[in-house]
Amino acid sequence: MATISIGTVYKHQFSFSQAEVILFAQVSGDNNPLHLDADFAATTQFKKPIIHGALASSVFSKIMGTAFPGFGSVYLEQHSKYLRPMFVDQAYEAVFEVISTNAEKHTAEISTEIFDITTGKKTTTGYAVIMNLEKF
Amino acid sequence: MATISIGTVYKHQFSFSQAEVILFAQVSGDNNPLHLDADFAATTQFKKPIIHGALASSVFSKIMGTAFPGFGSVYLEQHSKYLRPMFVDQAYEAVFEVISTNAEKHTAEISTEIFDITTGKKTTTGYAVIMNLEKF
Repeated sequence: MATISIGTVYKHQFSFSQAEVILFAQVSGDNNPLHLDADFAATTQFKKPIIHGALASSVFSKIMGTAFPGFGSVYLEQHSKYLRPMFVDQAYEAVFEVISTNAEKHTAEISTEIFDITTGKKTTTGYAVIMNLEKF
Repeated sequence: MATISIGTVYKHQFSFSQAEVILFAQVSGDNNPLHLDADFAATTQFKKPIIHGALASSVFSKIMGTAFPGFGSVYLEQHSKYLRPMFVDQAYEAVFEVISTNAEKHTAEISTEIFDITTGKKTTTGYAVIMNLEKF
């Protein structure tokens, strides 16, 4: 099977609805009103409910586990820096790039970033380390 | 309101059922069979389904958003290193410790670790950066 080389980029567009944010709050137990209560959020610097950072990061887990590198991936590390708030029903793009690979350990360091498609601004930056016996 | 000082520790015991792992797979879209399919997992090095790393990390989000430091927290950064697989119906303890604080920015660096209660072994290590206007 072909391996994935350094510099390979994968992009994935997504958005989250308020219903999905509520479901994530139930699953994770994180019912911080900043994510769920529009009246409360209106009193904060963000003005409206923001998506859980952990929900945004779950997009990285989803893509790396299912699409890039995909099947057989084992998640070893994730570093996420939440630069800007993310909102429901807003279009975002997650961008992945293979930064380095280790053929002996079958691991790769992959940068993981999210951009607001409307403004072009980066909302999240960081990297993952993934093991995949067939891809690296 | 009293601020939280360096060295303060908070502990939280938890476990996840297979039903919760399935729900997380649905919410996040990460339906990697390693988490869901006992027959597939039996063919891997892990022998049985493992919990999503992102689901384990969601415990950090939950506790910091709701209990320690709690209400009003804004998540700025999370670094998680997945050292060992985690399994359903197994007892774990998340341990948080305030490593440093910045009174001007109202932020703190908090170490975030998970231990298997039965074996005492650390399964996850890392740290978060949290802003909380009243606690730091």
